Amino acid sequence: MSEQGVTAPKGFVAAGLAAGIKASGNKDMALVVNEGPEFTATGVFTRNRIVASPVKLSRKALASGELKAVVYNAGNANACNGAQGDADAATVVTHAAEKLGMDFGDVAACSTGIIGEPLPVAKLLAGVDGLVENLGDNGHEAAESIMTTDTVSKEAIVKGEGWSIGAMGKGVGMMAPSLATMLVCLTTDASVTAEVAHEALEKACAVTFNTLDIDGSTSTNDTVILMANGASGITPSVEDFEAAVLSACASIADQLQADAEGVTKRVRITVSGTTTDEQALNAARTLGRDNLFKCAMFGSDPNWGRVLAAVGMADADMDPDNISVYFNDHAVCLKSGGTPDAREVDLSGADIDVKVDLGTGGPGTAFVRTTDLSYAYVEINSAYST
Amino acid sequence: MSEQGVTAPKGFVAAGLAAGIKASGNKDMALVVNEGPEFTATGVFTRNRIVASPVKLSRKALASGELKAVVYNAGNANACNGAQGDADAATVVTHAAEKLGMDFGDVAACSTGIIGEPLPVAKLLAGVDGLVENLGDNGHEAAESIMTTDTVSKEAIVKGEGWSIGAMGKGVGMMAPSLATMLVCLTTDASVTAEVAHEALEKACAVTFNTLDIDGSTSTNDTVILMANGASGITPSVEDFEAAVLSACASIADQLQADAEGVTKRVRITVSGTTTDEQALNAARTLGRDNLFKCAMFGSDPNWGRVLAAVGMADADMDPDNISVYFNDHAVCLKSGGTPDAREVDLSGADIDVKVDLGTGGPGTAFVRTTDLSYAYVEINSAYST
Repeated sequence: MSEQGVTAPKGFVAAGLAAGIKASGNKDMALVVNEGPEFTATGVFTRNRIVASPVKLSRKALASGELKAVVYNAGNANACNGAQGDADAATVVTHAAEKLGMDFGDVAACSTGIIGEPLPVAKLLAGVDGLVENLGDNGHEAAESIMTTDTVSKEAIVKGEGWSIGAMGKGVGMMAPSLATMLVCLTTDASVTAEVAHEALEKACAVTFNTLDIDGSTSTNDTVILMANGASGITPSVEDFEAAVLSACASIADQLQADAEGVTKRVRITVSGTTTDEQALNAARTLGRDNLFKCAMFGSDPNWGRVLAAVGMADADMDPDNISVYFNDHAVCLKSGGTPDAREVDLSGADIDVKVDLGTGGPGTAFVRTTDLSYAYVEINSAYST
Repeated sequence: MSEQGVTAPKGFVAAGLAAGIKASGNKDMALVVNEGPEFTATGVFTRNRIVASPVKLSRKALASGELKAVVYNAGNANACNGAQGDADAATVVTHAAEKLGMDFGDVAACSTGIIGEPLPVAKLLAGVDGLVENLGDNGHEAAESIMTTDTVSKEAIVKGEGWSIGAMGKGVGMMAPSLATMLVCLTTDASVTAEVAHEALEKACAVTFNTLDIDGSTSTNDTVILMANGASGITPSVEDFEAAVLSACASIADQLQADAEGVTKRVRITVSGTTTDEQALNAARTLGRDNLFKCAMFGSDPNWGRVLAAVGMADADMDPDNISVYFNDHAVCLKSGGTPDAREVDLSGADIDVKVDLGTGGPGTAFVRTTDLSYAYVEINSAYST
């Protein structure tokens, strides 16, 4: 894109560079700085109980509802490194805060890369020096610098009336496991309270990033941070702000799914006809994680029996004799039995839409996105750390 | 094996033949008959809520605690065929009961094969005729006739003092999805009550078949049936009987895991250090189903970070800073951090032992068996129904 993502809103500067963390020599560190006047911030973190050191640090930093900068590195997750990992993350953030003239608690950190390797602290400290020197309208460079196995950088800009939201993101579960961390940074020059920011981010994540369920694996490092500085002087309505945050998150989520290495099919699953939305989500996730179903999608095989076998194990109310399944809006199973032309549906395209009605007549619905299970997925994920 | 499995105990006869259900022309129907004098029987069925027609029928037949015969077919699961499927299963069983001079409720049915294809009833009825004519000491032929993608038949014999248990089994999750059904038949000439039989079978299944967790998928047709006829005139102690049932189930479970198509590694996972056994099982299953972990096993890659990332998502008490991981008894992660020689452990063999201690000091432990995720798994499972 011609416009810069996270530096599109007023009052945000960024930088990206190669600090030597990646063996490839590619860019691997980024810095995003909020120049104010306000420093409102909120974050959403991984649900995994094994969390990386930068996640612990950033949670604490965001507890105040304010933040001035985020330091990113790619190539090393700084996860499962024990007390040393916590100390290393703090050392990098302390150095960044000093260089930026900020307090320790003003700076968050996000890391992505291999788990369990010591952070190369000296490289990161030198990287911070270079980043601080190069701060400017470099949103695109920052987005490139947080990539791991991503093939393209991901950015988004959403414009309000006199204000805007910028965003960058990287990664997603199916691409390369321990590198699979999803990191997203959202910036806005709107003036909003921490409560409004947090509510908007939670709502947007719930229907965008949280519906991306590629392999059931959840990174130790997943982090989405939103910073708002009010530099536009405008306080949008809560509705407008929430819509813009949602739009930015949706764009990044689409880009993440579209850049899935090892994936040949993008699968959208909608479940309805159960008692609650939560039950529908259970069923949709169970189906989206079922390897037999995912292999069938890879083979463009309308094997709807696997859909029933998968949802039958889900924690959701259902009428086992009244389940319907549609592939690309073609009915392949009605009242839990196959339709005469079920095998004739064409699943050869890259996008497959799957709708499942669990048959109780209840109002619960849910939507998740997943992918197929391909040879390339196995190839990419079978020889990573060594 | 030279000895016949299900016909090894006194008073059981069996037959197997090709009825034309499989396109290959291989044997695809079997019949196991209990000649008495007692007809004690019990069963354990799939936990899936989408159940095949023969499962519904067999559950009803076993409600009385007695059974005289089981009709098996391979190549068609008779699942998700609606009311027609139920009627077709009943038609086959009605015919078998007539030919055998039994009542309808004396005969159970087990099917394995593709889901959602109408049962070729005429072929099965003719098959029943042939089976009844050929009943005899044909346990091995029966075991061959229930195979789908199994490469070898599975049988077991356990001898008590003057009594014995015979067994046959087929299938397992990783082999070929909709064909993945696990069917097991156990016969014994011991004289036991339905309660003793059921308790013994439940206990044995819990630590054998239920610890086989290959891809998290559960068939619509899984059935384990135990028939006891007292023909030996001996009533073993409950302890001896339970030990023998466990031994027979363990043997079949080992054979199922060993015959896993598309699998290059057999992985044994033990989880300890959490509050309850159930929590430990949650963690072991979560790890055993994690595709990133399974791909690492395929690549002989000691990427222990994936173990922590996986168990961190499990519903189990843990100390996130005190988790230990051992590959083949080599410590690769202690106190949630990597050991200096973690990458040096040799995982090139076909068997990999993984031990995870969740670090709470609690007494909960669990064990599951799984496999790697290989190219062949994807190949076998991506083009099945068409």
